[in-house]
Amino acid sequence: MKEFNLGIIGLGNVGSGVVRILNERRFMLAQKIGSSIQIKRICDINLKRKHNVHVSEKIFTKNAYDIINDPQIDIVVELIGGIHPAYEYIFEALKKGKNVVTANKALLAEYGQQLFTHALDCNKNIYFEASVGAGIPIIKSLREGLVANKFHSVFGIVNGTSNFVLSCMSESHCSFNEALHLAKERGFAEKDPTLDIEGVDSAHKLILLTYLAFGRFVNMKDVWREGISSLSLADIRYAQELNLAIKLLAVAKRKTDSLEVRVHPALINNRHPLAAVNGVNNAIYVCSDLAGDLLFSGPGAGQSSAASAVVSDIVDVIQDLKAGMFRPTLNTLVDSSIKRLRNPDEFESRYYIRFTALDKPGVLAKISSILARYNISIASVTQKERHKAKSVPIVMVIHEAKERHLRQALVEIDKLPVIKEKSVAIRIEEL
Amino acid sequence: MKEFNLGIIGLGNVGSGVVRILNERRFMLAQKIGSSIQIKRICDINLKRKHNVHVSEKIFTKNAYDIINDPQIDIVVELIGGIHPAYEYIFEALKKGKNVVTANKALLAEYGQQLFTHALDCNKNIYFEASVGAGIPIIKSLREGLVANKFHSVFGIVNGTSNFVLSCMSESHCSFNEALHLAKERGFAEKDPTLDIEGVDSAHKLILLTYLAFGRFVNMKDVWREGISSLSLADIRYAQELNLAIKLLAVAKRKTDSLEVRVHPALINNRHPLAAVNGVNNAIYVCSDLAGDLLFSGPGAGQSSAASAVVSDIVDVIQDLKAGMFRPTLNTLVDSSIKRLRNPDEFESRYYIRFTALDKPGVLAKISSILARYNISIASVTQKERHKAKSVPIVMVIHEAKERHLRQALVEIDKLPVIKEKSVAIRIEEL
Repeated sequence: MKEFNLGIIGLGNVGSGVVRILNERRFMLAQKIGSSIQIKRICDINLKRKHNVHVSEKIFTKNAYDIINDPQIDIVVELIGGIHPAYEYIFEALKKGKNVVTANKALLAEYGQQLFTHALDCNKNIYFEASVGAGIPIIKSLREGLVANKFHSVFGIVNGTSNFVLSCMSESHCSFNEALHLAKERGFAEKDPTLDIEGVDSAHKLILLTYLAFGRFVNMKDVWREGISSLSLADIRYAQELNLAIKLLAVAKRKTDSLEVRVHPALINNRHPLAAVNGVNNAIYVCSDLAGDLLFSGPGAGQSSAASAVVSDIVDVIQDLKAGMFRPTLNTLVDSSIKRLRNPDEFESRYYIRFTALDKPGVLAKISSILARYNISIASVTQKERHKAKSVPIVMVIHEAKERHLRQALVEIDKLPVIKEKSVAIRIEEL
Repeated sequence: MKEFNLGIIGLGNVGSGVVRILNERRFMLAQKIGSSIQIKRICDINLKRKHNVHVSEKIFTKNAYDIINDPQIDIVVELIGGIHPAYEYIFEALKKGKNVVTANKALLAEYGQQLFTHALDCNKNIYFEASVGAGIPIIKSLREGLVANKFHSVFGIVNGTSNFVLSCMSESHCSFNEALHLAKERGFAEKDPTLDIEGVDSAHKLILLTYLAFGRFVNMKDVWREGISSLSLADIRYAQELNLAIKLLAVAKRKTDSLEVRVHPALINNRHPLAAVNGVNNAIYVCSDLAGDLLFSGPGAGQSSAASAVVSDIVDVIQDLKAGMFRPTLNTLVDSSIKRLRNPDEFESRYYIRFTALDKPGVLAKISSILARYNISIASVTQKERHKAKSVPIVMVIHEAKERHLRQALVEIDKLPVIKEKSVAIRIEEL
């Protein structure tokens, strides 16, 4: 039975999960793939971590180049995360003729184009199933299962921390801060959760999904991004009354020859399958032209689910290595019908809007006349409370409007003396 | 660019969809896979069907052996459905050294074991992504994406016709017959819908899912099967009041060393993601030990979605052919920890039960004393109407009970003079 040698760089949470699976499932995997997988070397700067796993002490090193330069190693698994030195390790490993498996979405979102091109030059490949949706086989599905399809749009709930916080606010009617506190307590949020709650992590994953679905590598600066930290419980509750659920959505959407790529809180119909994706679960909803609208969902994080994806990549590399080829479907096709990225000003959407206004006659007339001037038509409006001489919330849903027009209208409306707070606007995504 | 020759047997709905995709996406597919796909021959007994597609008349034949015996054909795509002569065509094609792509779940459910073994003997393979869930890449996901996982259970909503009928009854509160009539009108049900509504089609697909998840080929006679035709609107409505949704579920579930395989109407919690799978959509909910609980859903039928899956299989065959191997992960591993199939008598479940009883004191005491004797405990009970001297429905939910005990208890209860109709029992599936 042919044996393939693995070098693992990074023995953190996911890394030790991978080692455990490869140890415990050695026989099962060998039977399935007809080859055996040998962990030849493990690198971590913290040698104490070797106590996490049951492998011979001799295979440990603090120097990644002991792996990268080892001619006997076929596959390098990069699991240290971060941009540097992960970039250099992967670049060099490819150059040395190794295929690379990584879960590093931040790196691929930023340097994917360079690394994929470099891999192609080296006739090697980079596998990254674990980088989006952990154990959900979304990358394989987009690339192989849906190989014949063109895509209209991809919608993702791809950050477990944010989804936990929003689910918690929606279900327990707690504040953002309370929900985030609970997420931290349960280990679902980092000490500094900025990257998660501000949509940075979602944007990283969206860049990879966009690449897979549309063959375009979008820059981080071209992803319109809004986080969830400014969402108030009041808006979530008012939206619930309208049968809308709040999600941090990552959206890549084609409109004729242009593509819009954005991450922001969005309200979706309560009955849409994405609305049922709660807690730390992730989901990707793919609108394809042949296979139709597909939902993939499951746990979006966790040691064993991410490790499950890494091991499936390792198996794929081995299949390719045995075949003496790199799997050409891995090369995403550039969709040449997409000519440009849409500017946020061009976005069009329905909106939930909450105005905070004095409770007196004529307020609605003032607001709606400004909206009318910007060609924005109102679908529904409800005044939520009554408090003479105090300001009250007015919740409005508007029909599809250009983002730019809405923003201009809101600036004008917020200048009205009857308006007492900055108005809140949340997109309603039609799925 | 290397060219691969295809022979397509069966130019019906899916077949012409496949031809259309291969024609219209020729360039895109060639770019993605680095090879071109040539339709060398198409067979159909009805030569009029050739007008459905734009290909040279010369490639048509009424004789499948013109394809099977053609040494230049690399891949045979069987899309005629049914058992014979599909079995013979696939058997011979494998023998002649061809890989086979098929969407024929009925055939694979019945003769899969023989055909897969024969394929292995021939060093060839059978690809069947389209046979379950149409364009949903569930087979690739179970086999490749989740390669490192062991499975606890697989739950499927895998028959679009039944799901449409049940959704229609649940949403519009129409009768079974009205819903079925609508399904026929919309083209979602065959003229004779028996195979769909009696769970036969679901059982075929469940056999394939069970094979993929547990490496066991179960016989049709070992699948416990109940259809949806006897479901009444009243029960669906009473269940809705209990926050339960009705689905025709296909279930393969491991319990320590045994496996139970069953298709039947089941009530599930309204908030479970499967409850949101409505209309002709299909879904497969997979409980795996590493990647966790995953949901895959999308349209379960339709020309282009099934054809999307067939084309993805063709691409996979070509990758394997180029590599001069057949992909070993295609071989499902027998899970040797499963020693036996569970007998229906051993099934355990919560139940929704509706008794039809005279509205007089002491009825509940009689019913519950019989249940108590069988060790069945009641979770809730509601009398739905009041009609002195007329029979009224009593809806009961029981805690987990052995199927055998419940059936015996119901026989006794139904003999009580106060009970006026056969009692109805529907499993409540805990997901």
